Amino acid sequence: MFEVEVKARIGEETRRLVRARCRFLREERHVDIYFDAPHRRLADSGEVLRLRQIDGRAVLTYKKKRVNADVRVREEIEVHVGNGDATAEILKRLGFRVLAEIRKRREIFELGDCQISLDDVEGLGEFLEVELKSENVSDAKSRILALLRELGISDDAVEKRPYIQLYLEKFPNADRS
Amino acid sequence: MFEVEVKARIGEETRRLVRARCRFLREERHVDIYFDAPHRRLADSGEVLRLRQIDGRAVLTYKKKRVNADVRVREEIEVHVGNGDATAEILKRLGFRVLAEIRKRREIFELGDCQISLDDVEGLGEFLEVELKSENVSDAKSRILALLRELGISDDAVEKRPYIQLYLEKFPNADRS
Repeated sequence: MFEVEVKARIGEETRRLVRARCRFLREERHVDIYFDAPHRRLADSGEVLRLRQIDGRAVLTYKKKRVNADVRVREEIEVHVGNGDATAEILKRLGFRVLAEIRKRREIFELGDCQISLDDVEGLGEFLEVELKSENVSDAKSRILALLRELGISDDAVEKRPYIQLYLEKFPNADRS
Repeated sequence: MFEVEVKARIGEETRRLVRARCRFLREERHVDIYFDAPHRRLADSGEVLRLRQIDGRAVLTYKKKRVNADVRVREEIEVHVGNGDATAEILKRLGFRVLAEIRKRREIFELGDCQISLDDVEGLGEFLEVELKSENVSDAKSRILALLRELGISDDAVEKRPYIQLYLEKFPNADRS
């Protein structure tokens, strides 16, 4: 299963359109801790290791970019963990290093089988993310791009870099331990 | 919190004594997958990374030996994970390597605040393990040693090596992937 997703910088007009046209599911507050491996830079191989804490729940996610294109296609493996702090501690003991801790508020909507998120990311601003899980990458990709056009999002607004990369470019010395 | 434990090879007489004198709690079947790190041999630094599957539940445990003595004293960090297979897959993608998969049947008893296990380990034989979680290592140690004497276990029978080490010594080429 692949996760095909597109992210874009947005303003008030797109937020209004999403809230009007998509079905609201829930709001979440995320604290995402991104780790780097002791023996290689995960970013160099398109990998992400993230521990997300959502209101007491915690999920460890490994992602690897599979296709280099104008949409991000990643394979992802997710596991719910009983204790986020203990999981972070195990990773640190094994030599993993915290790259950054990123906080955001996410409003989640659905439109058909697309999941649409309005993200307010601390320090980075407001984004929309469209995500479609599919075995057929090219079909998913064209459907997402059509949806973006409907929401009036220009190609210029599409942001290919993951949040962790945007964060480290903006705050190169922050939050490391 | 430290986990002070002693393991010993046992025979039918000790098994009988434990079953007669200790309170039976439960029986578990464990499939323990031991991992090594991509950048260092965990055994060299007294570390163990183990994914245990117990009847559908899965627990990831990191242990590090803290005191080199005639009992094993390890600090341990445990986290319950929602999916053992996904956890193993994340570790493998990050470069961790399976050292061995060890299966055992464990009967768990308690006597005071000691936990006593009768282990039947596939390929290795029968063992007793006494475990006491404590902040006071030397107190825990003397209480465990007294208990062993009560159970008629001789010093020769004490086995200081962890199962993973015994396993790799006996089956140096088995189960690796």
